[in-house]
Amino acid sequence: MTIDTATAHGFYDRLRRLYQERLPFNRLLGLGVTSLNADGATMAFSMREDLIGNVFHHTLHGGVISSVLDAVGGLTASASLVVRAADLSDEKVKAMVARVGTIDLRVDYLRPGRGERFTASGRIMRAGRKVAVVRMEMHNQDAMLVAVGTGTYMVG
Amino acid sequence: MTIDTATAHGFYDRLRRLYQERLPFNRLLGLGVTSLNADGATMAFSMREDLIGNVFHHTLHGGVISSVLDAVGGLTASASLVVRAADLSDEKVKAMVARVGTIDLRVDYLRPGRGERFTASGRIMRAGRKVAVVRMEMHNQDAMLVAVGTGTYMVG
Amino acid sequence: MTIDTATAHGFYDRLRRLYQERLPFNRLLGLGVTSLNADGATMAFSMREDLIGNVFHHTLHGGVISSVLDAVGGLTASASLVVRAADLSDEKVKAMVARVGTIDLRVDYLRPGRGERFTASGRIMRAGRKVAVVRMEMHNQDAMLVAVGTGTYMVG
Amino acid sequence: MTIDTATAHGFYDRLRRLYQERLPFNRLLGLGVTSLNADGATMAFSMREDLIGNVFHHTLHGGVISSVLDAVGGLTASASLVVRAADLSDEKVKAMVARVGTIDLRVDYLRPGRGERFTASGRIMRAGRKVAVVRMEMHNQDAMLVAVGTGTYMVG
Repeated sequence: MTIDTATAHGFYDRLRRLYQERLPFNRLLGLGVTSLNADGATMAFSMREDLIGNVFHHTLHGGVISSVLDAVGGLTASASLVVRAADLSDEKVKAMVARVGTIDLRVDYLRPGRGERFTASGRIMRAGRKVAVVRMEMHNQDAMLVAVGTGTYMVG
Repeated sequence: MTIDTATAHGFYDRLRRLYQERLPFNRLLGLGVTSLNADGATMAFSMREDLIGNVFHHTLHGGVISSVLDAVGGLTASASLVVRAADLSDEKVKAMVARVGTIDLRVDYLRPGRGERFTASGRIMRAGRKVAVVRMEMHNQDAMLVAVGTGTYMVG
Repeated sequence: MTIDTATAHGFYDRLRRLYQERLPFNRLLGLGVTSLNADGATMAFSMREDLIGNVFHHTLHGGVISSVLDAVGGLTASASLVVRAADLSDEKVKAMVARVGTIDLRVDYLRPGRGERFTASGRIMRAGRKVAVVRMEMHNQDAMLVAVGTGTYMVG
Repeated sequence: MTIDTATAHGFYDRLRRLYQERLPFNRLLGLGVTSLNADGATMAFSMREDLIGNVFHHTLHGGVISSVLDAVGGLTASASLVVRAADLSDEKVKAMVARVGTIDLRVDYLRPGRGERFTASGRIMRAGRKVAVVRMEMHNQDAMLVAVGTGTYMVG
């Protein structure tokens, strides 16, 4: 099944606004959407004093990393629903997106979260009728891999 | 090996201050330590507008849940080191605690994070020389189980 | 919703036979069902030369442990469906059970799998309409905790 | 640090024989090593009646999949130790490899394990002094992605 470009862009715009502007905790983290399509998504944020978890090493809190990986995983799972959005009314698209939720999440902390700017990306591994599986990665501005993760999301 | 009560209490006090007062992101979440001993730890926080992740359902952001489970898991892993703290200088205790880090984390989101006050607890499952494994749970004020998790922590 | 005792027992008997007699890999492992109800399940098996994974330490292969935890998790998830089985024909019960599948699994290897007889148990943490979450544990005959795990299962 | 080619090959040969010939449960699964270097490893096995887990759909048991992913993850983690093997005696290499053990494992079952021949590969994500993290994938003979996983291994 295909979907026309305008509908797809409208759907992505809606998701972008939701994840970037309307989710209070994403705003607290300063999280912005930097790319979005049916196969994946990218989000980015900047280091700030209050995101620190290890005062000895001045690195990101593990919870910031897991929050961002979960956010980009959820956005990736939501974006994979684009093909279903084609024939839906605005209300139904909203209801469909509202139902997306994380079932479970694994995060692997590979290296200390040191840097000024971090980018997280998600790639869809399974786009099922009810469940989506996404693999995520986070790099700093020097392309150093900070963390990877895997999330399972309810999508139907 | 045993440790005298005063030393143990001094160690727990140090951890409590570290996790509650000195970690910026824990402060941002409003996270407080409510109990602490060699087998486990408990932390609590209150609902706030900016911790919301699902504006449709007015529930906690998944990242807040994973952050808090990771924090209480790390605190539990750190507290399990109490027996090593007996003969150490202040400097060495500090260095030992600074080395504690999350290797990986799994979070299972069981029910929507709805409530006013949330309590998270950790229980040590493996207290190895190098690695500790902790199982965590989060309940709301009505004892509803919101999420469970498992974390692996570097401790040596 | 309740279910009469005879129907429940018929359902459990069917599951027991399926998991114990009809699944070839469970037979290869020598896995037997030792208890079963709506909240959980227990399975047991004996050490054998060909289940060894570490020849230096003569301990269970990690894959045997993950296999058994997955099996008892799937059995627990299936048993939680007992309330749905009440009004179903034999064919529909069979179709319902055939749809149960593992979405994802985490296993924590806490201590070397040393022993003669191992028991694994599952406890349901979330019994949703589409997805069930189960926490599992494996002990040896001396009640030593060998491994814990968490599984997410498709149930509808 | 570098290692000369002959020493590296001797080390890989030793690992290959260990994982393929000397681990009873790997032999039970019919698991063979098909490639091996410092960044990753590949193993393969063939479908057999007694590896079936779902008799309704005639697909691999989830435990076979988790066993194979764990095996290839452990082999990948072991192979990453090649640089440490340079100056070690045979006895010390053996002791080093014997210490490698799975700390925890996550498996995501993406599609039913249907096929005749399956290949699993591991790629090292973190090669730490004490802990290695590996991401794994399993495909069938038609390059269909059956499962992915992530494992954390003790390596020192």
